[in-house]
Amino acid sequence: MLPPVAPPIRLLLGPGPSEIHPRVLAAMAEPTVGHLDPYYLSLMNDMQQLLRGVFRTENKMTLAVSGTGSAGMECCVVNLIEPGDSMVVCVNGVFGGRMVDVAERAGAKVTRVERPWGEVFEPAHLKDALKAKPKVVGIVMAETSTGAHQPLEEISKLVHDAGALLLVDAVTSLGGMPVEVDGWQIDAIYSGSQKCLSCPPGLAPVSFGPRAMEALGRRKTKVQSWYLDLSMLAKYWGEERVYHHTAPINMTYALYEGLRLLDEEGLEKSFARHALNHQALAAGLAAIGIDYAAAAEHRLPTLNAVRVPAGVDDAWVRRELLTRFGIEIGAGLGDFKGKVWRVGLMGHASRAKNVLLFLSALEQLLGEQKHRFQAGASIAAANAVYSGRA
Amino acid sequence: MLPPVAPPIRLLLGPGPSEIHPRVLAAMAEPTVGHLDPYYLSLMNDMQQLLRGVFRTENKMTLAVSGTGSAGMECCVVNLIEPGDSMVVCVNGVFGGRMVDVAERAGAKVTRVERPWGEVFEPAHLKDALKAKPKVVGIVMAETSTGAHQPLEEISKLVHDAGALLLVDAVTSLGGMPVEVDGWQIDAIYSGSQKCLSCPPGLAPVSFGPRAMEALGRRKTKVQSWYLDLSMLAKYWGEERVYHHTAPINMTYALYEGLRLLDEEGLEKSFARHALNHQALAAGLAAIGIDYAAAAEHRLPTLNAVRVPAGVDDAWVRRELLTRFGIEIGAGLGDFKGKVWRVGLMGHASRAKNVLLFLSALEQLLGEQKHRFQAGASIAAANAVYSGRA
Repeated sequence: MLPPVAPPIRLLLGPGPSEIHPRVLAAMAEPTVGHLDPYYLSLMNDMQQLLRGVFRTENKMTLAVSGTGSAGMECCVVNLIEPGDSMVVCVNGVFGGRMVDVAERAGAKVTRVERPWGEVFEPAHLKDALKAKPKVVGIVMAETSTGAHQPLEEISKLVHDAGALLLVDAVTSLGGMPVEVDGWQIDAIYSGSQKCLSCPPGLAPVSFGPRAMEALGRRKTKVQSWYLDLSMLAKYWGEERVYHHTAPINMTYALYEGLRLLDEEGLEKSFARHALNHQALAAGLAAIGIDYAAAAEHRLPTLNAVRVPAGVDDAWVRRELLTRFGIEIGAGLGDFKGKVWRVGLMGHASRAKNVLLFLSALEQLLGEQKHRFQAGASIAAANAVYSGRA
Repeated sequence: MLPPVAPPIRLLLGPGPSEIHPRVLAAMAEPTVGHLDPYYLSLMNDMQQLLRGVFRTENKMTLAVSGTGSAGMECCVVNLIEPGDSMVVCVNGVFGGRMVDVAERAGAKVTRVERPWGEVFEPAHLKDALKAKPKVVGIVMAETSTGAHQPLEEISKLVHDAGALLLVDAVTSLGGMPVEVDGWQIDAIYSGSQKCLSCPPGLAPVSFGPRAMEALGRRKTKVQSWYLDLSMLAKYWGEERVYHHTAPINMTYALYEGLRLLDEEGLEKSFARHALNHQALAAGLAAIGIDYAAAAEHRLPTLNAVRVPAGVDDAWVRRELLTRFGIEIGAGLGDFKGKVWRVGLMGHASRAKNVLLFLSALEQLLGEQKHRFQAGASIAAANAVYSGRA
């Protein structure tokens, strides 16, 4: 006989899943009801209202896709793209590259616009690609592989001037930093439950604006994915309540509770909390000679991608963090494999106590790795930020 | 402020989600770990072992897709089908029809073979369609819309004699009745967590046999869905542990515990329990003049699709069951809308106490609807089955 589920207690400071709020775990264990139960239908409505709040949008078509963040990406792409449509994808990390792959599988003619990993796109970088009048431009707001924060307002204007639709990846930003779907005129956007929303992985919030919905209405072909076809999902999430697939009831409980927590705290306070803890971590890391992969002006508050110091054993440090302290951080992906650590401070994980514990543990391990630094300097620097002295 | 999650307590006797075992809900609320945590990777291995047990297969490629049962269907179809491939789909209810839609969206040339709703396919019904040498034949073992049980052994032989691959929908059968993946030479199969496995909806167990894997290896095009591409999923579930998408950790806890419960009970005992409770329900319903949609020799033990008696208000009865007793049963779908009730006895829900409560409640409501029957007759008949007197 196999043993019961008994996971070790971790502190999740990786790129996601992030720390789950205890109220979310409790909500998830509430009794299951049917996917057409009046209670569940009412909860869906309330969750849509909360999602519109965190996306800062009035979009009717705001819902949670029954899959993880990558299913949200695929949902957006396959609904917007018909075979032969042209799409520009901005690639400066793993997730831009993934969007290219998803789009090509949907039959898009994809133009890649590339920037080095860790850098972001200026409007000028897109000008040439936009001359070909693409149908859709896809861009990652928070590149989880590099920790780079992509500004969107100017690019949105340029994309719309070219007559294209703007598709945004907000997996690692939603809830932890401003995402202004209506303000920035984002046409389609997706995220994941397991980052700044303090929920387990399993649901992908998405929102489609009026221009995207018009494009969907003009489609000549069926969406290639039955599971992700928004025209059918809309009939279940809308007033008709037509059965499509059996919704993940208890995951919906979890996401609802995660969004309710965020609503209680207030978006602005959440953004400020994420910013402060990021600043403290960054000050602490700087004090012991650890650099970021992204330039200072483009660092995500939610995900800190930092360079493994020369001479330090990447895998050993991550393993010892996990085994001695139960702390999970992320390894580098792709171009950054072996070169970068990814430290997430997202949702419930973004707290001073986690920053201080992580820096303390890291100092212990870096000391054993003969990395040269002033012992205690990271804690002093982080505390200076918290105490308003830096 | 919106209220916390506080669902009403239901008895889920519909077509799914079915009753969730309390140990499953508790497992789901265990602390989340990362998708590359050694504990989680070990749990995935153990879950695969349990899934192979319930599928009765040695297939290495046995895993849980990160979506509901319909994502499992789409995963099987899009991996087996390349644009232009021919596929025969057997349609005698909603889910066969859904498979046609999914296959056409994947670019398959689909031949529909149809039987009236509630009936099943004999090998002779497929002979003509198989002459065209299709690549894949898709069939629903347990048609949730009609309650019909499709025998597979002879059809499997015929399909393989024609050189085709056999794809089976086992959403409403897996765990509640024999599903012999190796014994019946099924090439690809999918199910859902929310039926006889006593878990919430959100994961889709799938298994691919050696012939299916060879076909995947011969593909000339990429699988159209990035999210469901088995070649990439295999690298995460296999020894390489290459990150694909962030797995739904807590749903995996739930499915693992549901499978462990089934393993403790033993498959044969679970099948016998499902059969007995179905027989008791059928005897009870017959005693008050309620007929099945499917012929006696082809009735599922897991899902009872029965005809709404003449003169009885379908929607009123379902609504009163829910509001007076908290009992959910399913409405008819498609051709059976307004004509059929679907009473699931799946997984943890398949118990004598639920059969007796349902029959008692139904008698109360049918009495108020002026349906003519001998009061108490359904309970007497069901009890006779349980006591070995019928």
